[in-house]
Amino acid sequence: MSYEYSTTSNRVVRSEIREILQLTRRPGIISFAGGLPDASLFPIEEITEITAKLLADKGYLALQYGPTSGEQEFKEAMIAFGAQHGEEVTQEQLTVTSSSQQGLDLLSMLLIDPGSPVILELPSYLGGIQAYRRCGADMHGVRMDDEGIIIDDLLACIEKIESGGKKPRFINVIPDFQNPTGITMTLERRHRVLEIGREKQILIIEDSPYREIVFEGEKLPSLWTLSGGKGVVTLKTLSKMLFPGMRLGWMYGDVEVIEKVIGLKQSVDLCTPSFSQLIIAEYFRSGRMAESLRRAIDTYRPKARAMLDALDEHFPEEARWSRPTGGMFLWVVLPEHLDAKEIFMEAIEKNVAYITGQPFHCDGSGRHTLRLNYSFPSIEEIGEGIAKLAGVIKSRL
Amino acid sequence: MSYEYSTTSNRVVRSEIREILQLTRRPGIISFAGGLPDASLFPIEEITEITAKLLADKGYLALQYGPTSGEQEFKEAMIAFGAQHGEEVTQEQLTVTSSSQQGLDLLSMLLIDPGSPVILELPSYLGGIQAYRRCGADMHGVRMDDEGIIIDDLLACIEKIESGGKKPRFINVIPDFQNPTGITMTLERRHRVLEIGREKQILIIEDSPYREIVFEGEKLPSLWTLSGGKGVVTLKTLSKMLFPGMRLGWMYGDVEVIEKVIGLKQSVDLCTPSFSQLIIAEYFRSGRMAESLRRAIDTYRPKARAMLDALDEHFPEEARWSRPTGGMFLWVVLPEHLDAKEIFMEAIEKNVAYITGQPFHCDGSGRHTLRLNYSFPSIEEIGEGIAKLAGVIKSRL
Repeated sequence: MSYEYSTTSNRVVRSEIREILQLTRRPGIISFAGGLPDASLFPIEEITEITAKLLADKGYLALQYGPTSGEQEFKEAMIAFGAQHGEEVTQEQLTVTSSSQQGLDLLSMLLIDPGSPVILELPSYLGGIQAYRRCGADMHGVRMDDEGIIIDDLLACIEKIESGGKKPRFINVIPDFQNPTGITMTLERRHRVLEIGREKQILIIEDSPYREIVFEGEKLPSLWTLSGGKGVVTLKTLSKMLFPGMRLGWMYGDVEVIEKVIGLKQSVDLCTPSFSQLIIAEYFRSGRMAESLRRAIDTYRPKARAMLDALDEHFPEEARWSRPTGGMFLWVVLPEHLDAKEIFMEAIEKNVAYITGQPFHCDGSGRHTLRLNYSFPSIEEIGEGIAKLAGVIKSRL
Repeated sequence: MSYEYSTTSNRVVRSEIREILQLTRRPGIISFAGGLPDASLFPIEEITEITAKLLADKGYLALQYGPTSGEQEFKEAMIAFGAQHGEEVTQEQLTVTSSSQQGLDLLSMLLIDPGSPVILELPSYLGGIQAYRRCGADMHGVRMDDEGIIIDDLLACIEKIESGGKKPRFINVIPDFQNPTGITMTLERRHRVLEIGREKQILIIEDSPYREIVFEGEKLPSLWTLSGGKGVVTLKTLSKMLFPGMRLGWMYGDVEVIEKVIGLKQSVDLCTPSFSQLIIAEYFRSGRMAESLRRAIDTYRPKARAMLDALDEHFPEEARWSRPTGGMFLWVVLPEHLDAKEIFMEAIEKNVAYITGQPFHCDGSGRHTLRLNYSFPSIEEIGEGIAKLAGVIKSRL
């Protein structure tokens, strides 16, 4: 039988990256590919203990349906956590999501009509690009330098969209330790992006999965904080700072936006699991999260250092790379005549994997770029893998 | 600031029912409103034990990212469970979903363009209607009688759609203990629906949350089984037969359909929690599910009986109601001049709640209908609540 599928469905291209990730699961492969946290950080015993107590005390609640906007206790715990990190959020401004990918999905549905112009960084997070593409967005990528999105290019981009009689539905940025580049937006750029949003009446989507994983210096204030919670929607997830296996995220924004998001979520999945929310609420409330975060930072800092050292030692001088001060990723730009996908196939034969950079570019550019993850491999693997990868790249030069 | 929202978002009306459900949470209320399982059935100790063992043995996996189509172990357990209930399904035909609401969401995205005609039972499940409405479907409701969807009306409906030069994208039925009516489609009607689907090349969506909760007689073969797994997509969930707090569901269908659904799910939430999937896989594998299901049936059968007895005893003869032989719901049709919403407000004052029937009608009809749930209240509450409700209704006649 042959069915007629929707335009939405026809826009979906199954991600090449997800296919690549299959390859990287082969035993013996040193993988810099995924965005996986180090599983040795998972607080197995504490979660076991909390789950047993939760089920004994209120299993009737934990295994039942919950509210679409999330469990009160979870929301309160996330608000308290935010406050410790300089974010002021009210209950009404917040909703729980099934990790931040669902946040991107709901915002896509809320804001995008087929053909709607949206602005994102070039490169930007693949999951956002997938959701925006599915909804038929007209995606405009704005280049970044070491200080984040380039303001003049952003202004030119908006002007170009406006000259076509349209208005961007949002500007999506990842200010802290950006995925995929590892770049952090400077304070001055943050102010400028917010100013532009205010002047032009464009919503800013601040995707913020890595903000708390900071190796050096102080965190910069988030766009949410700098804006006083106006004109910004911020997406958070536990996937990077704790673990991804419960798929818990949350988002905050103008009450009007959040209420509409909750309305959409009803038709999407009714509610996020109460079971997981209540486990994590207790994990945060008991003060264990601060320790988790410290351990994550102490684990990832030397890994990032090891990768930078290995790159400095082995990589050819024709390549350039970012020097992240937090997060999970580092970005490599090869000479333009090299193709990261071709190199990947050779690297895989040598048992090293990474992710090609092109799918992170909404305009299809970036064939000579690649993303390296340092949170998942061990320090030994990082040294060995980077040396091998350098060999493959050098042989192509 | 004022934003431009999408057409999709503007189609979403926040459900009146969800608002009503808030009222029914008041202490002292006897609620026939929600579709909640009886929390005394939740296997707290077993889940605690399994979770502890899972985290100890493979916490590194349970708390990590998993595949978009679901954990292998979960899929295998659901396939084995299906086989015990007469369903033959392969790995390639199946994908995990965040409960069956997400299945409806993904199918909506896959199949509906704004204006696409779709056919559903009149009345039908509210969550389906919400997802279809959000995608801009042109919904056509086909009436039911005690034997399920009325075949002549279905044919007439298809003819009407075809005469406008269009083709229905799917026919959505809930053959077993339908929500909201409690009606089960007869074997003959099942064959007829499938024949029509085959002849007209229309996909059948079989939503099947209640099939295993059967009080009397044998289960009828599912549409999936009768069709040999062709031209049907079947949605399953644990929410009704076990508990809803982990939001786990799965669906099976033609491989082509399922692959497209998985592609869509990537942009929606990347993956369903591995943590919950692995807990439930072990729960099923250890053989405990059969016992759970027996206990659920033994709990709900006398509750349904008690509700039917109370209705026979107290309800006015002008009202009619269904006599479900499984599932969680019973449907009441009042004389046409009565308004179930007005009666609801009076019933709530008397501390009894139910759900008005109108929102289950995609054409806005059904003001004089209401749905009663018997799985959540106790037998004593059922007797007392129905007597009170009968009093309110009689006073209106």
